[in-house]
Amino acid sequence: MSNDDTRKKRNQRAADTAARLEAAAPLFGAGKEVSSDNTVALLEAVIRAGDIVNIEGNNQKQADFLAESLNKVDRSKIHDLHMVQSAVPLASHLDLFENGIAKKLDFAFGGPQAGRVAKFISEGKLQLGAIHTYLELFGRYFLDLTPRVSLICAFKADRKGNLYTGFNTEDTPTIVEATKFRQGIVIAQVNEIVDELPRVDIPGDWIDAVIQSPKPFFVEPLFTRDPGLITDNQILLAMLCLKGIYAEYGVTSMNHGIGFLTSAIELLLPTYGEELGLKGKICTHMILNPHPTMIPAIETDWVDTIHCFGGELGMEDYVASRPDVFFIGPDGTLRSNRAFAQTAGHYALDMFIGGTLQIDKYGNSSTATASRVAGFGGAPNMGCDAKGRRHSTGAWLQCGQELPSLDQQLGTMPRGKRLVVQGVETFGEGRQPVFVDKLDAWKLAENANLDLPPVMIYGDDLTHIVTEEGVAYLNRCPDLDSRMAAIRAVAGYTDIGLQAKPEETKRLREANIVKTPDDLGVDPSRATRAMLAAKSVKDLVTWSNGLYNPPSRFRNW
Amino acid sequence: MSNDDTRKKRNQRAADTAARLEAAAPLFGAGKEVSSDNTVALLEAVIRAGDIVNIEGNNQKQADFLAESLNKVDRSKIHDLHMVQSAVPLASHLDLFENGIAKKLDFAFGGPQAGRVAKFISEGKLQLGAIHTYLELFGRYFLDLTPRVSLICAFKADRKGNLYTGFNTEDTPTIVEATKFRQGIVIAQVNEIVDELPRVDIPGDWIDAVIQSPKPFFVEPLFTRDPGLITDNQILLAMLCLKGIYAEYGVTSMNHGIGFLTSAIELLLPTYGEELGLKGKICTHMILNPHPTMIPAIETDWVDTIHCFGGELGMEDYVASRPDVFFIGPDGTLRSNRAFAQTAGHYALDMFIGGTLQIDKYGNSSTATASRVAGFGGAPNMGCDAKGRRHSTGAWLQCGQELPSLDQQLGTMPRGKRLVVQGVETFGEGRQPVFVDKLDAWKLAENANLDLPPVMIYGDDLTHIVTEEGVAYLNRCPDLDSRMAAIRAVAGYTDIGLQAKPEETKRLREANIVKTPDDLGVDPSRATRAMLAAKSVKDLVTWSNGLYNPPSRFRNW
Repeated sequence: MSNDDTRKKRNQRAADTAARLEAAAPLFGAGKEVSSDNTVALLEAVIRAGDIVNIEGNNQKQADFLAESLNKVDRSKIHDLHMVQSAVPLASHLDLFENGIAKKLDFAFGGPQAGRVAKFISEGKLQLGAIHTYLELFGRYFLDLTPRVSLICAFKADRKGNLYTGFNTEDTPTIVEATKFRQGIVIAQVNEIVDELPRVDIPGDWIDAVIQSPKPFFVEPLFTRDPGLITDNQILLAMLCLKGIYAEYGVTSMNHGIGFLTSAIELLLPTYGEELGLKGKICTHMILNPHPTMIPAIETDWVDTIHCFGGELGMEDYVASRPDVFFIGPDGTLRSNRAFAQTAGHYALDMFIGGTLQIDKYGNSSTATASRVAGFGGAPNMGCDAKGRRHSTGAWLQCGQELPSLDQQLGTMPRGKRLVVQGVETFGEGRQPVFVDKLDAWKLAENANLDLPPVMIYGDDLTHIVTEEGVAYLNRCPDLDSRMAAIRAVAGYTDIGLQAKPEETKRLREANIVKTPDDLGVDPSRATRAMLAAKSVKDLVTWSNGLYNPPSRFRNW
Repeated sequence: MSNDDTRKKRNQRAADTAARLEAAAPLFGAGKEVSSDNTVALLEAVIRAGDIVNIEGNNQKQADFLAESLNKVDRSKIHDLHMVQSAVPLASHLDLFENGIAKKLDFAFGGPQAGRVAKFISEGKLQLGAIHTYLELFGRYFLDLTPRVSLICAFKADRKGNLYTGFNTEDTPTIVEATKFRQGIVIAQVNEIVDELPRVDIPGDWIDAVIQSPKPFFVEPLFTRDPGLITDNQILLAMLCLKGIYAEYGVTSMNHGIGFLTSAIELLLPTYGEELGLKGKICTHMILNPHPTMIPAIETDWVDTIHCFGGELGMEDYVASRPDVFFIGPDGTLRSNRAFAQTAGHYALDMFIGGTLQIDKYGNSSTATASRVAGFGGAPNMGCDAKGRRHSTGAWLQCGQELPSLDQQLGTMPRGKRLVVQGVETFGEGRQPVFVDKLDAWKLAENANLDLPPVMIYGDDLTHIVTEEGVAYLNRCPDLDSRMAAIRAVAGYTDIGLQAKPEETKRLREANIVKTPDDLGVDPSRATRAMLAAKSVKDLVTWSNGLYNPPSRFRNW
């Protein structure tokens, strides 16, 4: 029913890859090694116009040398690339669009390039596919967005191309597997080529070329928060979270997002948490990067397990000293893995807590605005109700039992629900109101010609909002009207908050749908930096017995 | 703040592992090799009472020799094990509970042991943690159910412990990573120890011991359906699905579950699908095991990509001949991977279609009954609305746009929704009614002391039901009452179906919420085996150019 010719015609991918690698053959030295001088030539040999290309650029380690080299290719030959990658935090990632080499972007996180992403979209230089959550984008690597060529990075390679990704393994295994096993081409930049690796993270079979880059790859200490910069207001919010949510539901497993609020919570565990008698009852199992602000809680035995998406600069030795808590390889170094951490984050955690730039009157929130496409990272994956989850825990069951409207969805069938908490000051960055009538994401959708406004967390997934005004228990609201009223009640002096009616708020407080600091027995006058277990980066170093080695910009002593 | 002694006290896991391996040291031959004669002694040396233990037993390949050996350990020493594993399809998996070696089970799929799982629960021999979906269980491996010891299997190992899992990679990378990087112990049974592997799937660093088993590991051809056994009724359902759902929404990406209905759909693509002009418009991207019934559709160029959870016995050579469609390693063999396939299944697919044993009047369904705990496998993960999804496609958008009640959840914010379809004959296995007032799962919850009845797919995730009576478009129902009416309308002569009111059904048909075969222009008299592209296993072999090599029990020529 098909002869040899049509069979051959249908098997183009492997032949095309072989032809590309054949063209690159003269550039190879011993084994899989290519000299860094030949990087641009290698990229020109193996990449074709219109290819789907991945540059390993998650929110920490960066294949920066390869990203810069890709900007130097002959754009008359290589153009219209479709970039699929976790994050675009480097200038070189966006330069590809400015330089006419790349055309379309599917990603998850923008970081420092958020403004440029928005600008290029409105100028028509960048066609936006979608803003994903990491695990969603990883899933598409195996379905409809498989990279043809991936440019990755590792600490070390041996002569056979085996890679050591160690502390910063992060996205590498996922990218390499999706690319290589669909006849794609994988090029790794490494800091060093050695005879013997500390351990093998990626088998050499899976790698086509290894380049020792002129300087070590860039790593951003994204999850380091200086305790010295935590404000009293953030400490108040942290106390409300601990008493009003962590204690109220007995939340043992969670992720903490990036930010000062969750850092404050971490630093209150050994103090306020201890005072509330919560040790062993909350925060025992976590999916987190190795936050330096977790050190005091770990040292006072709050935490059983932490699995990490990625590493955090300076935390290498401290993490290695705690192999009962972290996932450590036979070589004594952390093995991080974003895909598995996000999988656990989606299915095994009882709570996600994070912040946002805007929340609309219905409870939908986004960090994407018309002028800044910051992206969502892991928030949608962990900050949603994991509908496929089938195991139960106390916190998850309680949150589901409190839903008055569940019977309208499932009849008499009970179900739990994950806690999804947003902790925000009513006026956020640049004193902009966080609570808004309509998200700026609508404008972005128009500019970027998207089917839907890019929402980070949808209103029906959000269960709690915490502001300086108190806690709104949205999961206890019987309908959309009462949810909107609960949001208004904690929205302070924003336009949305000013629409709150005292009588309505009173009824919500009586129904335990809204609780003020007073209702919760939290005294705002105690919310000061005296409550923090560590008040500075230096304190964190002391807590770590000198094992935490903060990047120089965090050292002020 | 902590001295060396407390630091040591807190780092027990690695020391404990070292002590266990030290006790096992005399059993090792060269490198990581242990003779199969020493298997029981090895297990007794490295496993302790109360350990969390994983036996690699997914729905295909089985670490059967290690499972049998574990039944032979001294139960006065090793007992109360907590088994965490994808599936328990082997008698030896349940023997562990009968023999007093294991006590608690957290799993995803029961298969042939479903009856024994239920019996042991009611007899108190087996304490059921939860019935998970695979990816959920994998997530917990990295949080609160990390195996202390894992017993895995591979085709080949080399002298350094590197493993070749090839065609049946499946769960191995996930289990090994979770276990080894938390100081656990990994023991592999392999069919063969060789000098050189075809490719490395798992680095040797990650493996503690390798045992050449007395015979090759067992693999079940779970996804092989003989076209000769497909009934006319199943063909009718398949035609309704294709015209009423696949074509109606233009569904390009999906998973097909195990069963004759989806096999029928696959075999109708080159015939009825062609007639409807659907080639290139549906079924272009799939997450599937290598179903033999997909061969005609692949050979007629319907499919761009298939990523596989696992392998399928007999499909090795055929899959290898289609490297543009499947994920194939540098050695020319499939790389399956359940974790990534389920990730894509959750986040990248527009549709899940499968069957079930029971659906209640609200639309909740389950395969768990009081006398058979069959488990859920991947169904909850793919058969739910992935709330973290942020990219849009036509089918997903259309399904969301049809939801009349979305504004009650999100205000004015639009969102898509995944299609979740159950195709069932109104009377299923053993002529039992599929539509029931109350799921048997309630009884199981009582017997097994579970917090919630184990539901496979919840009513609010289910968007369509297809029976011989027609298609119920549940996503178009404004409320629970109308959803219940739509379910009744397609429930045939079951007790639930007999409660349907003709006037009500007429209104639902006018509202396009229910469509009969006639409404859809599907002529039941055409639903015969003449429609199938292959009518027998032998036809499949012919379609494959002789590359499909069916297991002997499927050969009747």
